[in-house]
Amino acid sequence: MLNYSELLKRINAKIASTSYGSNPKNLYEPIDYMMGLGGKRLRPVLTLMACDLYGKNIDEAINAALAVEVFHNFTLVHDDIMDNAPLRRGKETVYKKWDMPIAILSGDLMMIKAVELLAKTPNPRFYQILEVFNDTAAKVCEGQQIDMNFETRNDVTHHEYIDMIALKTAVLLGCSLKIGALIGGAETSDADHLYAFGKNMGIAFQIQDDILDSFGDGAQFGKRIGGDIASNKKTLLLIELMETVHKDDKILMNNMLNETNENKKIEGILKLYDKYQIKQFAEQKKQDYLKKAFESLQLVNIETTRKKTLEQTALELMERMS
Amino acid sequence: MLNYSELLKRINAKIASTSYGSNPKNLYEPIDYMMGLGGKRLRPVLTLMACDLYGKNIDEAINAALAVEVFHNFTLVHDDIMDNAPLRRGKETVYKKWDMPIAILSGDLMMIKAVELLAKTPNPRFYQILEVFNDTAAKVCEGQQIDMNFETRNDVTHHEYIDMIALKTAVLLGCSLKIGALIGGAETSDADHLYAFGKNMGIAFQIQDDILDSFGDGAQFGKRIGGDIASNKKTLLLIELMETVHKDDKILMNNMLNETNENKKIEGILKLYDKYQIKQFAEQKKQDYLKKAFESLQLVNIETTRKKTLEQTALELMERMS
Repeated sequence: MLNYSELLKRINAKIASTSYGSNPKNLYEPIDYMMGLGGKRLRPVLTLMACDLYGKNIDEAINAALAVEVFHNFTLVHDDIMDNAPLRRGKETVYKKWDMPIAILSGDLMMIKAVELLAKTPNPRFYQILEVFNDTAAKVCEGQQIDMNFETRNDVTHHEYIDMIALKTAVLLGCSLKIGALIGGAETSDADHLYAFGKNMGIAFQIQDDILDSFGDGAQFGKRIGGDIASNKKTLLLIELMETVHKDDKILMNNMLNETNENKKIEGILKLYDKYQIKQFAEQKKQDYLKKAFESLQLVNIETTRKKTLEQTALELMERMS
Repeated sequence: MLNYSELLKRINAKIASTSYGSNPKNLYEPIDYMMGLGGKRLRPVLTLMACDLYGKNIDEAINAALAVEVFHNFTLVHDDIMDNAPLRRGKETVYKKWDMPIAILSGDLMMIKAVELLAKTPNPRFYQILEVFNDTAAKVCEGQQIDMNFETRNDVTHHEYIDMIALKTAVLLGCSLKIGALIGGAETSDADHLYAFGKNMGIAFQIQDDILDSFGDGAQFGKRIGGDIASNKKTLLLIELMETVHKDDKILMNNMLNETNENKKIEGILKLYDKYQIKQFAEQKKQDYLKKAFESLQLVNIETTRKKTLEQTALELMERMS
């Protein structure tokens, strides 16, 4: 069994050696740029890891792994346009560095290249592999739209929020694992359990992300603490506060949401989070999804020792984030 | 052999009975809206026609045919954003009727749905079918980018222009036929000849379109005559004029390109088109590509009588446009 850093090396070597095309230059350059921005490469590593779980040569899954990473980066290119985001991993976003039409079109092309890479997986179960990919891709779009729709709503429930992050970010982790497992030769039931493991892990990761934005150690986390609060971002924490706040505190909460002094605003919302035990609520939710994830992993019908790498990856990622 | 109008009925029935999803509503509604705008449905009809050519039940190609149409509509949704176009088939474009993020995302989803539909084609040669689809999809993106790049160039040659329209619009006609032929059970060589037939027909159609915008009968053509001239659109005609204009006429041409009085501008450029026999040049090019198209059709290894429907379709479309 290969560990994360060994698999990451394989993925990075594959990314470095892959050319998507060259003409016209201003269409293909953004693809190389995006793919070169780095990152944890979590999704393709999971694909290889799931394939490796079944003792299959991971070379058979390398194109599918890259397909998932290219797909993920396509969604980032388009999300950055929609969110008007200037930076991605500390560098200019594609639509800022080039322009909006180029960002739309090179994103489209990345989506196509993702399918093209996936199709380089000769496998008798290719229809099944393509189906989970398409199904997941559609869910990711749905999640992004639901997230945008939340911006203009004040009655989002925490159930709706979790359903949204499941679609927007978590299913792709499940999909990465399921595709790797299918290539590895797993039974469909095993592949489905690994999908559930990845999806529930993904939900837990996102909740952790929400918690850390308000309660993390800024320096270690690499982001300004309270950024979500400052921008009124509808995280699990804010949604739960809005759902549970007593009517006597509602005016105070709304005042804080409209407060222009940022420090005062962050302090005010954090006080309400404390009063309503919002952090504890979110921690509990996170634990619930972690538990679900590990229950699914347990159902996977292979030797327990072979599952160690996946377990460790999940726990280390959670740890590294905290 | 089924004719165009019979195949069109089958396609329209399939479109009317297909649901792409419903939640979130504002993501799926634009898809139904776009697919309901109508049109000639040329691409999916070609897919069915090519399948029918080999005597195979066209039901086997119906999902692939719809996939091609959904893909085509996806490109229109995104092109309309890039071109800032307010209208499409006389109705508001998706990004005008909804907004830009929704147009990006519902377009993305259409691309995914196209692959999903294509994957509903159980066929031993599915990898080959998916390959021509992906390859064509990438070319369409390249063509759109090259077209956008032309806007800021004054040295585009007519060869470059024809290469661009081949990518942007013509290869998808070739692809539609090739996919239908493969599903129909054609030899790869036949499928390739049909691809070349469709591609060269597509180039001829686009040249015809360019000619008619400057020389057509406005009422019949359904567009204002001279619209391309008024907007300095780099058509085959303008590009050829720019390439061949004598240096003595260059100042006059540039004055006309910068002329703000629209009628004067159209009249001025048309005079130059006459002087340099630009219409004749374009007609000749159109004939060259039509000839190439029919040469490819001739190479298709089936009875000549079976090719009649395709021949007639091509000629009628050319006729109807003139």
